[in-house]
Amino acid sequence: MSVKNTLFLVLLLFVPVSLAAHFLEWGDLAVFITAGLAILPLAAWMGTATEEIAVVVGPTLGGLLNATFGNATELIIALVALNAGLVDVVKASITGSIISNLLLVMGFSMLLGGLRYKVQTFQSVLARVNASAMNLAVIAILLPTAMNYTSIGISEKVVQNLSLAVAVVLILVYGLTLLFSMKTHAYLYDVGVAEIEAEETPHTKPNMWLWSGVLLVCTLFVALESELLVGSLEVATSQLGLTSLFTGVILVPIVGNAAEHATAVTVAMKNKMDLSISVAVGSSLQIALFVAPVLVIAGWILDKPMDLDFNPFELVAVAVSVLIANSISSDGESNWLEGVLLLAAYTVLAFAFYFHPVIDGIG
Amino acid sequence: MSVKNTLFLVLLLFVPVSLAAHFLEWGDLAVFITAGLAILPLAAWMGTATEEIAVVVGPTLGGLLNATFGNATELIIALVALNAGLVDVVKASITGSIISNLLLVMGFSMLLGGLRYKVQTFQSVLARVNASAMNLAVIAILLPTAMNYTSIGISEKVVQNLSLAVAVVLILVYGLTLLFSMKTHAYLYDVGVAEIEAEETPHTKPNMWLWSGVLLVCTLFVALESELLVGSLEVATSQLGLTSLFTGVILVPIVGNAAEHATAVTVAMKNKMDLSISVAVGSSLQIALFVAPVLVIAGWILDKPMDLDFNPFELVAVAVSVLIANSISSDGESNWLEGVLLLAAYTVLAFAFYFHPVIDGIG
Amino acid sequence: MSVKNTLFLVLLLFVPVSLAAHFLEWGDLAVFITAGLAILPLAAWMGTATEEIAVVVGPTLGGLLNATFGNATELIIALVALNAGLVDVVKASITGSIISNLLLVMGFSMLLGGLRYKVQTFQSVLARVNASAMNLAVIAILLPTAMNYTSIGISEKVVQNLSLAVAVVLILVYGLTLLFSMKTHAYLYDVGVAEIEAEETPHTKPNMWLWSGVLLVCTLFVALESELLVGSLEVATSQLGLTSLFTGVILVPIVGNAAEHATAVTVAMKNKMDLSISVAVGSSLQIALFVAPVLVIAGWILDKPMDLDFNPFELVAVAVSVLIANSISSDGESNWLEGVLLLAAYTVLAFAFYFHPVIDGIG
Repeated sequence: MSVKNTLFLVLLLFVPVSLAAHFLEWGDLAVFITAGLAILPLAAWMGTATEEIAVVVGPTLGGLLNATFGNATELIIALVALNAGLVDVVKASITGSIISNLLLVMGFSMLLGGLRYKVQTFQSVLARVNASAMNLAVIAILLPTAMNYTSIGISEKVVQNLSLAVAVVLILVYGLTLLFSMKTHAYLYDVGVAEIEAEETPHTKPNMWLWSGVLLVCTLFVALESELLVGSLEVATSQLGLTSLFTGVILVPIVGNAAEHATAVTVAMKNKMDLSISVAVGSSLQIALFVAPVLVIAGWILDKPMDLDFNPFELVAVAVSVLIANSISSDGESNWLEGVLLLAAYTVLAFAFYFHPVIDGIG
Repeated sequence: MSVKNTLFLVLLLFVPVSLAAHFLEWGDLAVFITAGLAILPLAAWMGTATEEIAVVVGPTLGGLLNATFGNATELIIALVALNAGLVDVVKASITGSIISNLLLVMGFSMLLGGLRYKVQTFQSVLARVNASAMNLAVIAILLPTAMNYTSIGISEKVVQNLSLAVAVVLILVYGLTLLFSMKTHAYLYDVGVAEIEAEETPHTKPNMWLWSGVLLVCTLFVALESELLVGSLEVATSQLGLTSLFTGVILVPIVGNAAEHATAVTVAMKNKMDLSISVAVGSSLQIALFVAPVLVIAGWILDKPMDLDFNPFELVAVAVSVLIANSISSDGESNWLEGVLLLAAYTVLAFAFYFHPVIDGIG
Repeated sequence: MSVKNTLFLVLLLFVPVSLAAHFLEWGDLAVFITAGLAILPLAAWMGTATEEIAVVVGPTLGGLLNATFGNATELIIALVALNAGLVDVVKASITGSIISNLLLVMGFSMLLGGLRYKVQTFQSVLARVNASAMNLAVIAILLPTAMNYTSIGISEKVVQNLSLAVAVVLILVYGLTLLFSMKTHAYLYDVGVAEIEAEETPHTKPNMWLWSGVLLVCTLFVALESELLVGSLEVATSQLGLTSLFTGVILVPIVGNAAEHATAVTVAMKNKMDLSISVAVGSSLQIALFVAPVLVIAGWILDKPMDLDFNPFELVAVAVSVLIANSISSDGESNWLEGVLLLAAYTVLAFAFYFHPVIDGIG
């Protein structure tokens, strides 16, 4: 058994520990940390289960499954937080997931891959299509925020209606990107797919019922732990001297995406950059084109005022992340310095969120 | 006779109908709609007449003629609106023309062309020069707006002087782009030119005096219909429940550019992407580097306070349109998904302008 | 002796003249102009001395020396101004140095080179790495400014702390770009290095002690003249009817970078674009990643409140300059029209700074 798997088994112990912390009232900080640690292995097992089921049901349905459940952990945490009325935390975690995938994950991949290989290459056509899709996502997030910022006395209702309309457009576009990647232009993705297959150890056909059960159980436990995490978030972070903004933008996404981080970096060090980039950028796109709009629609159904009117500073952060990530990835080549530039951008943003005074009722 | 030509002949009937609507006082809404429909065929005939005269006078003078009269309809409508003091409508129609050419026209071209051809290619050097010229145009529009937005108590006079100075620079740059495309680097445009020639049915040398007469008559009628359109605009749009901002940014440019839309999409479906892109981007550039500065200078002469200080939200819209259009076009390749991304950006912008509360006296 | 060298010897006469102007009290305007002219030849001699010493000490140490002393003149003027408490002038000269290198120097190089050669090419990989590094620099400058602009009641202390943290990150990145260019990916820079060597006339090994003495003397005189320049700046510019903002952003950088301007344009006209671009972009990068952070740290040590919170309009100017420079340079090709676009952008910015009403105590 690999070191990674052993680690994940040990971390599973935090599931009962976090429950104990909650019911024995060890305090919010203990609950927050143990629930956060408990989510790590559960998220990893959900990922494994999704991939195993995808193998059984075939590429098309499997691709859809991956596209829908790929960020299930983030989605569950966000739904729980949304239901608890922590709209600003939800928005911060959307921002943070995009930023951390584009800068932190891609940065470490390019840096560590680049220390082994002078120049690494990947599909530039794909990189540019992805870059344009990320630009669309930025525009979609920008408009409600810019409307609110450039007008006086705009009603909450108008921003919400615009956000809903935008959300529907984004989900349609997401569906069409799946059609593009799985049907009409699937050949562009062949290198990445070959790299995925080479990555997996050959094994017998997985037992679909077993893995469906695993997926179901893990999903339930993630939801449970998310309740603990969200319930203890406000008190715990203020005890740590952190704002909810910093927690939502920087801390939560590192926890929520840990498994993907590991994958992207590992394969980059094996010079499989197509797979590495597709994990990092694909995850960002999924957050922006699928998770965020689903949350807007969910907020509308749950009657929580979730919209796409972000804190202007979060918007600036997303926009500059997309800018520098596109500028670095669009030529289909990377080297260690480009990884450093992404990580430096992330560091600078993290400092800014650390120093940012909290506004709009966050934290 | 083609379907298009028959349609345009039928639409000519709206010229007398709109006059009747005006003089028989059928109401502003009737005047607005019939005048708008009457402009469509007149604009198309102006375009045909310009091209026929261009054939007679030779490539250089013909190119200049096309470059000056290519957006004559928009220019006439804008001059009439400017003279009527509807400065905000003029600005909105400039914004809208740029946006609709870059997103709507190019988007439909790439989508419908891409449904027939997996990958379509075009001159990437040209696409990048055009992208940089559009960036310059955005900068030129951005600066007066940003100056007004970042300073307190700036005088109208200063913004106007800056706008005039910027307008002169833009017109000089426009002249130099013509020199570049027609003289020093004409070879870059050879593919597009060959596509134009293949597009035209071979015919005998056109009668220059006939077509000059057509051009003159159409110009006069466009000016007349523009008077009707502008005079009825404010009442009619409020009856339709629309703001002048939405009308200026979304509705007017669709009407004003209908002929160009048809051309760009038709040739894209014949895989003549160089011509298609040059119609869409060329028209945007002409608006930004020639029509907008001419209007600023005309406003100065007419003593109407026309400047380049746009509604910040319009500026955001132009900037993001240029951003995504450049990101999609600069590699010299397109596919249907890129068309979808452009159209999605347009849809999202249209929603935003629909929901945007009106400020600055528009409306 | 070349015309350039003769000119520089004549300009050296302004050293005693400026001292006379100061001690004989000829007025601030006379001191300002003569000190400005005296700095030109001193800066040129400092550059020559640095290069000669670099030849003796070998490529690695020599590269470091060039990287540190390459913008020594700007750094000295800025330190003197900072010590005199003219923080806004210091910031303006940082902004102006970046803008003038990217637009004015690169613009003239591409225009004048492009008038001789239809298409000029240069290393596109390098251009893109540099573009990404400039994007990082823009992000670093943007964040403190954006934080201040999007929050209410943020304390000066917080902005300063953030600026210090960002400055440290930028200096680390600068060090790593040197490692990249001189060690791990030095081969990318071989063309430029070969062009530098071809540029220099073969000569005997320079006398290191002689040139070190020249460097020391020139540095002292530059510091002295900077004192005169800075001391007379406020009165002199107001006598000329100019704001300090315009002086800092437009005038000072033209003086401070005159020698580099001459080099970049001269080699571009010999079709050595790699060297020309590396002078222009390299100088911008050095200002953004080394000089600006050093000034922040110096301000902290000198207890002058220097931070990276720029006038929003300056930030806009830097951002759009980087945008258009990247858009033009990233394909590794240039022509005269691209030079015109850069110069037009510079002209438009210069107009904007000329008309910009002064705020924040500048002026």
